[in-house]
Amino acid sequence: MQRRRFLGALAATAFAETKTPRVDAARLRRHLEELSVFGRPPGGSFADGVSRIAYSDADIAGREYVRKRMEAAGLTPRVDAAGNLFARRAGTENTLPPVLFGSHTDSVPNGGNFDGDLGTLAAIEVMQTLNEAGTATKRPLEIVDWQNEEGYAFNGGLVGSSAAAGHLTQKELAAVWNGMTLGDAIRRIGGDPARVQEAVRPKGSFACYLELHIEQGGNLEKAGVPVGIVEGIVAIDRYDVEIQGFANHAGTTPMPERHDALLAASHVTIAVNEIVRSESGRQVGTVGQLNVTPNVPNIVPGSVNLVVELRDLSSRKIAMLADRIRARTREIAAQTGTRIEMRPAAHHDEALATPEVQKSIEAAAAKLGLGTMRLPSGAGHDAQMMAQLGPMGMIFVSSVGGISHSPKELTRWEDCANGANALLLAVLDQAGR
Amino acid sequence: MQRRRFLGALAATAFAETKTPRVDAARLRRHLEELSVFGRPPGGSFADGVSRIAYSDADIAGREYVRKRMEAAGLTPRVDAAGNLFARRAGTENTLPPVLFGSHTDSVPNGGNFDGDLGTLAAIEVMQTLNEAGTATKRPLEIVDWQNEEGYAFNGGLVGSSAAAGHLTQKELAAVWNGMTLGDAIRRIGGDPARVQEAVRPKGSFACYLELHIEQGGNLEKAGVPVGIVEGIVAIDRYDVEIQGFANHAGTTPMPERHDALLAASHVTIAVNEIVRSESGRQVGTVGQLNVTPNVPNIVPGSVNLVVELRDLSSRKIAMLADRIRARTREIAAQTGTRIEMRPAAHHDEALATPEVQKSIEAAAAKLGLGTMRLPSGAGHDAQMMAQLGPMGMIFVSSVGGISHSPKELTRWEDCANGANALLLAVLDQAGR
Repeated sequence: MQRRRFLGALAATAFAETKTPRVDAARLRRHLEELSVFGRPPGGSFADGVSRIAYSDADIAGREYVRKRMEAAGLTPRVDAAGNLFARRAGTENTLPPVLFGSHTDSVPNGGNFDGDLGTLAAIEVMQTLNEAGTATKRPLEIVDWQNEEGYAFNGGLVGSSAAAGHLTQKELAAVWNGMTLGDAIRRIGGDPARVQEAVRPKGSFACYLELHIEQGGNLEKAGVPVGIVEGIVAIDRYDVEIQGFANHAGTTPMPERHDALLAASHVTIAVNEIVRSESGRQVGTVGQLNVTPNVPNIVPGSVNLVVELRDLSSRKIAMLADRIRARTREIAAQTGTRIEMRPAAHHDEALATPEVQKSIEAAAAKLGLGTMRLPSGAGHDAQMMAQLGPMGMIFVSSVGGISHSPKELTRWEDCANGANALLLAVLDQAGR
Repeated sequence: MQRRRFLGALAATAFAETKTPRVDAARLRRHLEELSVFGRPPGGSFADGVSRIAYSDADIAGREYVRKRMEAAGLTPRVDAAGNLFARRAGTENTLPPVLFGSHTDSVPNGGNFDGDLGTLAAIEVMQTLNEAGTATKRPLEIVDWQNEEGYAFNGGLVGSSAAAGHLTQKELAAVWNGMTLGDAIRRIGGDPARVQEAVRPKGSFACYLELHIEQGGNLEKAGVPVGIVEGIVAIDRYDVEIQGFANHAGTTPMPERHDALLAASHVTIAVNEIVRSESGRQVGTVGQLNVTPNVPNIVPGSVNLVVELRDLSSRKIAMLADRIRARTREIAAQTGTRIEMRPAAHHDEALATPEVQKSIEAAAAKLGLGTMRLPSGAGHDAQMMAQLGPMGMIFVSSVGGISHSPKELTRWEDCANGANALLLAVLDQAGR
């Protein structure tokens, strides 16, 4: 019996190899264009991008569009208690955990039409393609549109996937942004904050999580490679650096007697850049925020606050870089007559993609005749929350000019379709036939 | 006749040498303490400093106090059309231009009780001392309390002395600050903006201008010298520097592909410091104001605006320093992949103190047994406007810790009295007996 089923499955697979369906590229494009009107600037076009902030009217309208697309694909949508939108397709062995895949449809203000939208609509497109082709899978399939990935609302992203990973507490639900609590916001999109624990997915509740996303960087374009296999999502460390000098008259204070906090901050900014670049690898380090006090032309700056952010696939590596930066701040403080404190402000662990899932994606791209490269994701994604619960993999497609979080964000339609087909084949590989 | 008068004057001088009066140090202190209550923080003491912004109720009350002090000294106060407060004492030769001296009584917000107040009240003290001693001078004497020296109101200082130098136009009188025009403000303090041209003092309308002021720097204290002879008021050049990079995701943009405007700005800030310090002399250079866009931790800074300020007694020297800084910005732009523009934003010429007036101050200090040093004024003063009209000299006294524009601003009572006596003797020397 066991053996017969194995042979039967093998035969079915061999048959399917030649008949595996492909997504409808024109339909996927049309759906991306249709979704783009929700949050589009008044009088604008697709090229003018989108502002679909989580929980806004535009977000609610966008999610309603996604819900209708799920229904049109032959699925029955369901909103969980945290406000995430799911739809399931039965497998031939429905006691097995499903293959889960999807993305998000909220955006940053003045964002683009591919970040999140592509992975969400491609997931629906995969379901519709399989339904229309009558392709059965052993495992059930489940797709998701996570809520508030970007985190512009409530100043912190991955809200829906964090809830699924068990990280959304009652305290966080009471946080207020724009005059509403997060609980109110979740109610707006159909969730039920009082039952948010029901949205938690136990470990092992899915076979693997897959997400198709635009790269948001320029590596694929530069290499001329259509499909990126994500090795993992980087760890992030943030440090608040406070530099205390002494504010004094810029006309009457001789140069050797100054305690210039901005001069010290400039040395720190350059040190971050030099130290991060001194090591081989793909780690990045940034001083993106810097505020001067009192910040007037004729007063030697008395204090500066700045934020150092470090990212790499290895938490250990960025901790080592932070140690080197901290050692340099001591030298800079001594040289500039200032006091410098560098305090940890936030830490996110790296989320490594599962090697077996990476192999599924690689095989899928190979079947499609598409070149691949492995690369880390420098940006955060809902996939990092799912990596806490089970195997995870991500597919990247090329961002023209590496631009994202901008109306100029662009991924070629051909790359969208290639990414969706890679997702389709990887899902089939993980789900079994 | 001519000769007889000359001999008579000589004899009078010789007589006066032994009988020259000295200011009443206790009275000067009491007047500084009495003036300090106008604009004092509620419930505070002398040590809590003062906020006597020009044209405020506190400023008007302070000026009324000064007016009463002038009357008590036996003088007849007069407000000119620009709102400056004058009082004159007849000489023995009243057709000669007077010796003019004084300072201001407005302050910055949270300022101290010596900046301006000392020079104004010491001028009254000199008049009262001479009146009480019955000391006649050949030239008439005239004292002044200039309005709005600090320029916190209407964002630009030396307003009253600029009017006297002929620089206050109808356009400037129409400027609006805090809901009132400068014309309205001048009317509040008893001036008449329609007749502001009448406040202009022609060249040669005074024999010399003298001003006693606190140093606002730490040079006198460091050298242990009680009296500073100001060589001149420095020239100031300000440049707006605009750095254009490219804002991009701090997680997904590899280090070599960044166009980081803050990294470039850090190099510019350090270059300003290094270039200014590379030359011998007392020039200063400051980046006091710097603003980052978009200024968030996870975006590589797209643009930075900063202000470079250079000061020295020589305009030529700071122009040369600016040329060297500009050349370095070109190298920095090339190294960081940014565009840097450095545009002149403001220029003030140096105002050199007249050598003969410096000698008067030096001789006065010598008679009092006080050590002196020559030094530039790194801060601006009404004296620089008067230098456009005639001979000018300034006396500095020590600022404890070099601190100014702060409630911590402090000059010892003994130094206040020494400065006032130096002023008295220098005035007598310039006025003749």
